[in-house]
Amino acid sequence: MLTVFGTVALDTTRTPFRTETRILGGAATFASLSSSMFAQTSIVAVVGSDMPADHIRAIRSKGIDTKGIVTVQGGKTFHYDSSFDYDLSNRTTNKTELGVIAGFDPVIPEEYAKSDYVYLANNDPKQNIKILQHFQNPKLVVCDTIEFWINGSRDDVIKMVGMADGVVINDNEARLLCKEANIAKCAKKIMSWGSKFAIIKKGEHGAILFTSDNQVFPAAAFFLDEIVDPTGAGDSFAGGFLGHIARRNRSDFATMKEAVIYGNVMGSFAVEDFGVKRLLSITKDDVEERYKKYRNLVQF
Amino acid sequence: MLTVFGTVALDTTRTPFRTETRILGGAATFASLSSSMFAQTSIVAVVGSDMPADHIRAIRSKGIDTKGIVTVQGGKTFHYDSSFDYDLSNRTTNKTELGVIAGFDPVIPEEYAKSDYVYLANNDPKQNIKILQHFQNPKLVVCDTIEFWINGSRDDVIKMVGMADGVVINDNEARLLCKEANIAKCAKKIMSWGSKFAIIKKGEHGAILFTSDNQVFPAAAFFLDEIVDPTGAGDSFAGGFLGHIARRNRSDFATMKEAVIYGNVMGSFAVEDFGVKRLLSITKDDVEERYKKYRNLVQF
Repeated sequence: MLTVFGTVALDTTRTPFRTETRILGGAATFASLSSSMFAQTSIVAVVGSDMPADHIRAIRSKGIDTKGIVTVQGGKTFHYDSSFDYDLSNRTTNKTELGVIAGFDPVIPEEYAKSDYVYLANNDPKQNIKILQHFQNPKLVVCDTIEFWINGSRDDVIKMVGMADGVVINDNEARLLCKEANIAKCAKKIMSWGSKFAIIKKGEHGAILFTSDNQVFPAAAFFLDEIVDPTGAGDSFAGGFLGHIARRNRSDFATMKEAVIYGNVMGSFAVEDFGVKRLLSITKDDVEERYKKYRNLVQF
Repeated sequence: MLTVFGTVALDTTRTPFRTETRILGGAATFASLSSSMFAQTSIVAVVGSDMPADHIRAIRSKGIDTKGIVTVQGGKTFHYDSSFDYDLSNRTTNKTELGVIAGFDPVIPEEYAKSDYVYLANNDPKQNIKILQHFQNPKLVVCDTIEFWINGSRDDVIKMVGMADGVVINDNEARLLCKEANIAKCAKKIMSWGSKFAIIKKGEHGAILFTSDNQVFPAAAFFLDEIVDPTGAGDSFAGGFLGHIARRNRSDFATMKEAVIYGNVMGSFAVEDFGVKRLLSITKDDVEERYKKYRNLVQF
């Protein structure tokens, strides 16, 4: 089983072409929808009573166990409001309303404790550290983080990184966290804190996997003619990455390389429509077909 | 035969670690040293009498025909002075002294006129257009350009692009030239001006080949632990790209994809030492070995 912990959110996303208000979003939502294409996925999160039941049903429709989603009556769901520039390459945060996730004391349903694979999606690192203690003996723990927590809780982020086996992080956030401009040096620093591998995501430029035994795997991004909404690409990448590893129940270098490509593939689906729309509509066959397409694309 | 036209220059290159003054540089130098690993290469350029004879001898030592290098007695060689920031990722131009290349009326030795492959390296687009008329019936003409000419002679750059078969250009320069942020749209615009393919170079992020029949090939960069001097990486890429095509005497899509990888390989050598130092020291075996290494690196 793969358990994802993180935010299930309401997103207001503004692109130059369209604005969508309070749609289903959140790092754990994207990551679990993505990993559910590969492995049995459970989700742990907290939402307020303003979270439409339809949204949770949508997550459940992909076979995801949502028993771990706690609803705080009268509370407000985490709300993230952001705008993309004309090229959809730069995002500006307009508002981050933590709502019920502030001070959440994560508990997990008993049966989740046996999860072999755990993804700590972007969330308060203190909560991520705390929830780890609830798992009995996970084989692989992967985490992510963003600017918000690096700026506010850098020491906790570093502690979390040290407790995880691997980190999946954006290039700019890696630079901010590590205070290093060169991403290879960032990866080395992340691993010096205790993580065994680091994947630096570079958006449209793909991703690079670095391991503590000095192996490197650079992967170009899947090429898309058009991007509709980049939100959730990184979380979908992480879900695809860990999902493939969980499905194979192996994390040797060869499997991790395939997993990076599945991560790319899932990220490429996520950005084809607003919010989680595309992830909700794809099938396992679509995923395998795009994986093959990717292999063809980069082959020489 | 492959003929390269462009600058043979004296470069002053400042990195945070070292400054080298008036070393051998220039787009045509890097491109021809690179292409000489693949195919018989001739070079056309103009220098001043301040160009040390040793520099020209160094070019000739790689089997390059330097009869096309014209020396203007009493003239000053093109001099480019630039500084790299702490991460070697951003370059600032300190000085561009055109010297003898201003107003140069390019002539080519008679035997060059039969060249099948022509690379118009970064240079005054008016001169690039003019020199094209000296070639009888080249199979493939590829050009590059930089900010300096886009800002000063955009119309001529567009005219040159239309006369070439392919363009090899940096992402930021493509954006500047095309007035488009998205690089796929840049490539389409470049091809709308008459070019049959466009390769957008993305530095450490690799390169993407776009063709007018809608084929795409994204390639990650070869991964290097350390970069000493990024100068000439793009020109070396172009030399490797066209060199491989000339060697195969074919420019179908499969060959172009291999050529992009050879371009990456040559760019990766160029940055391993200051100026042209590394390109002067490598052998054909080194090139093939790194090509294999690259294949291994990106394979999954």
